[in-house]
Amino acid sequence: MNHDTNFDRAGIDTALSVLQQRFGDRFTRNEGIRREHGHNVSMLYNQPPDAVVFAESTADVADAVKICAAHRCPVVAFGAGSSIEGQLNAPFGGVSIDLSRMNQVLAVSPGDMTVTVQPGITREALNAYLRDTGLFFPIDPGANASIGGMASTRASGTTAVRYGTMKDVVLAAEAVMADGRTIRTARRAKKSSAGYDLTRLLVGAEGTLGIMTELTLRVFGIPEMISGGVCTFPSVRAACEAVMATIQAGIPIARCELLDENQIRACNAYSKLSLEEQPTLCVEFHGSPSSVAEQSELFGEIALEYGSPSFEWSTDPDRRNKLWRARHDGYWAAVALRPGCEVYSTDVCVPISRLAECVEETQKDLADMGLFAPILGHVGDGNFHVLLSLDTANAAEMKRSEEFSARLVERALSMDGTCTGEHGIGQRKPKYLRKEMGDAVDFMQSIKAALDPQNILNPGKYGF
Amino acid sequence: MNHDTNFDRAGIDTALSVLQQRFGDRFTRNEGIRREHGHNVSMLYNQPPDAVVFAESTADVADAVKICAAHRCPVVAFGAGSSIEGQLNAPFGGVSIDLSRMNQVLAVSPGDMTVTVQPGITREALNAYLRDTGLFFPIDPGANASIGGMASTRASGTTAVRYGTMKDVVLAAEAVMADGRTIRTARRAKKSSAGYDLTRLLVGAEGTLGIMTELTLRVFGIPEMISGGVCTFPSVRAACEAVMATIQAGIPIARCELLDENQIRACNAYSKLSLEEQPTLCVEFHGSPSSVAEQSELFGEIALEYGSPSFEWSTDPDRRNKLWRARHDGYWAAVALRPGCEVYSTDVCVPISRLAECVEETQKDLADMGLFAPILGHVGDGNFHVLLSLDTANAAEMKRSEEFSARLVERALSMDGTCTGEHGIGQRKPKYLRKEMGDAVDFMQSIKAALDPQNILNPGKYGF
Repeated sequence: MNHDTNFDRAGIDTALSVLQQRFGDRFTRNEGIRREHGHNVSMLYNQPPDAVVFAESTADVADAVKICAAHRCPVVAFGAGSSIEGQLNAPFGGVSIDLSRMNQVLAVSPGDMTVTVQPGITREALNAYLRDTGLFFPIDPGANASIGGMASTRASGTTAVRYGTMKDVVLAAEAVMADGRTIRTARRAKKSSAGYDLTRLLVGAEGTLGIMTELTLRVFGIPEMISGGVCTFPSVRAACEAVMATIQAGIPIARCELLDENQIRACNAYSKLSLEEQPTLCVEFHGSPSSVAEQSELFGEIALEYGSPSFEWSTDPDRRNKLWRARHDGYWAAVALRPGCEVYSTDVCVPISRLAECVEETQKDLADMGLFAPILGHVGDGNFHVLLSLDTANAAEMKRSEEFSARLVERALSMDGTCTGEHGIGQRKPKYLRKEMGDAVDFMQSIKAALDPQNILNPGKYGF
Repeated sequence: MNHDTNFDRAGIDTALSVLQQRFGDRFTRNEGIRREHGHNVSMLYNQPPDAVVFAESTADVADAVKICAAHRCPVVAFGAGSSIEGQLNAPFGGVSIDLSRMNQVLAVSPGDMTVTVQPGITREALNAYLRDTGLFFPIDPGANASIGGMASTRASGTTAVRYGTMKDVVLAAEAVMADGRTIRTARRAKKSSAGYDLTRLLVGAEGTLGIMTELTLRVFGIPEMISGGVCTFPSVRAACEAVMATIQAGIPIARCELLDENQIRACNAYSKLSLEEQPTLCVEFHGSPSSVAEQSELFGEIALEYGSPSFEWSTDPDRRNKLWRARHDGYWAAVALRPGCEVYSTDVCVPISRLAECVEETQKDLADMGLFAPILGHVGDGNFHVLLSLDTANAAEMKRSEEFSARLVERALSMDGTCTGEHGIGQRKPKYLRKEMGDAVDFMQSIKAALDPQNILNPGKYGF
């Protein structure tokens, strides 16, 4: 399967001229703006598009894609710019369609517990909008990402253990396809057996099959009560086993984050805390007052069994936040470890029964390689991040970090895990996609070629 | 998009000869067996395949598909024969691959709460196998369907309101594709952002894109306690509103079934009961003893608000079964209504906020058309069935029932619902698929053409 990335410069230039006429001052070639749209929070080179179009409606997106299709011009959809595997770079030039002005809530149905939004709205803006309705959108990847971007990378984060990932909460989408036609992938019914699941084909496709212009999302009732707590364990293994036992006991834990010794050390330094430098779990429970109390107490008993005598929890928001302080500061504590360095957050996910082994081997590998990197895990899903603090000017260190990352993926794959739990493939992981999926990638390529025969939608991602 | 259904008889015959050599006495042209494999529980004509192959391994399936691909012979995958929209018929002849001997549990991981099974195992056999592990597989479509068949029709049933549908519990699949190659759609990690979601593309594809030969499923802890109960409401609307309020309150109701007045009347006649002939909800709660008590009491309070003073519930299994008697007997009570008639269970699904309106209008339409049909709903999902008892020899009645079904689908679509919540498209609903999905069907057809260019996998379904 050949995905042609030899774009004709003249065709792209023609498309840009036509786009400029169509969009007027919502079309720009400003270098700073272009660079921002190629920007990504990883350490990949910035590869800006040739131009940026600010879309304000589905019709805008459809027109832009039609123009690009007519002249074979690459199209990259842009939301909030928080993806980290190079999803937004434009290695073959072309146009970035900025969706951030398409940030409206189009409908809220409290009875159905659904909302329909435009793709550019951020999760924080959505939750601010929803607050008075008693509903909330639970998926929390950390960054204040756009909903369209979160859907496109199949994002998840801290609450996935209870509420699922973007694949579970996107009920339907409107999307502009590579020929500029607009489709809906599903109706608003909670379930359907009608046809191929185009919704979940677009979710996680990183903008390579279509551009989502509306999303209907499942939302949830704001929990009547939230309890949060923290406890330390004698080992990563004990912490992971406690989580497995909790899930097996049917306790609907809402968040469940592992911080390793190095992460706690970083937090102590950054936030002037004096936490015990031990593997630590930060947990949260959602429900009625009696139910969160029951869940917290049951969890405390399980934690005790696995060597944690110290489970402290509270339903008081201030106290909860204090207990979770280390988790909240986790990323910035890692950033502060080595001033002037950049943090690259890698991401793998394994069956939870293999998680302890995977984290322990990874810690040993880091030590053996002379790399210092805290580990933070969405441990209820078997997903963890290694926050590599890297001196990008140090070629030897960068090479070691690449070797480390490759071995981390190999380790996850050898445990029947995946090369990415929630960050996606982008520009960095195509080689791992093939290792993980084998011949299945051929069928992905067939789908790509069928739906985007000119390869104009986010070319160069997924290795396509 | 042209899906060629002009199969060359000589090619099919050659494939059958080669299959016969390869499979020996596991290949048959026996008429009774062929008819059984075209059998389906709806009232469509039986269209048997030319032959049946009994597969015992993935290699068998791969070989059979390779032979069929080489000579362009249609292939229909067969599990337990319980699909109801004609998914198993072979309108262009060819071979049915019977997967019922591939019925092994290949792996159980209590730590990960996953099992890996062959597609021919039935859900009851799987649950019997799991009983001692403390785990269970929750999806319950009524029939003792095969897991592969349930995945292929994106089945769900009574517990979907809590545990989701097959799209939510199939974590990964091994599948034989149209060229005979075997792929895995995902690893066993709980979540992944690696590549297009081939798992959910195969789930619901009704065997038109590939044949699943292994499935890794999420399973759940057997609830420590189950409470079940029943209550009547002054109207369908009141019952639906009570369910909406229950879900909005965050009560994790595990089953939630609506029986309309006609269904209760049928049950009274069939089971010699004297239930009040009112819209009735049968509900179930799963959890710890204190949690099911809390859930049941909260539900009782909500039911009272909506005019049901009578919520009776119990955690005693015998008492629970007695309370749920009407629901358990529902289908057979409908069958018994008119001896000698066949029951066709239609299936639509709408946003729950529109459910009362949809059921009420449907009841009125039935009455206006002189059709008598009980209504049974998985009301927490907005999904309901109309159990049409039809005299298949009465052409006028059959015509009325077709008109009724068409209007039912139109009604569901006008309410942003779907033409099928859980039965699938098969041979009966292709025309509705186009109405529901519009141009999106073109992209489904492109995917089909890309993955099965010879159109050998279950041709004639989905309208392809």
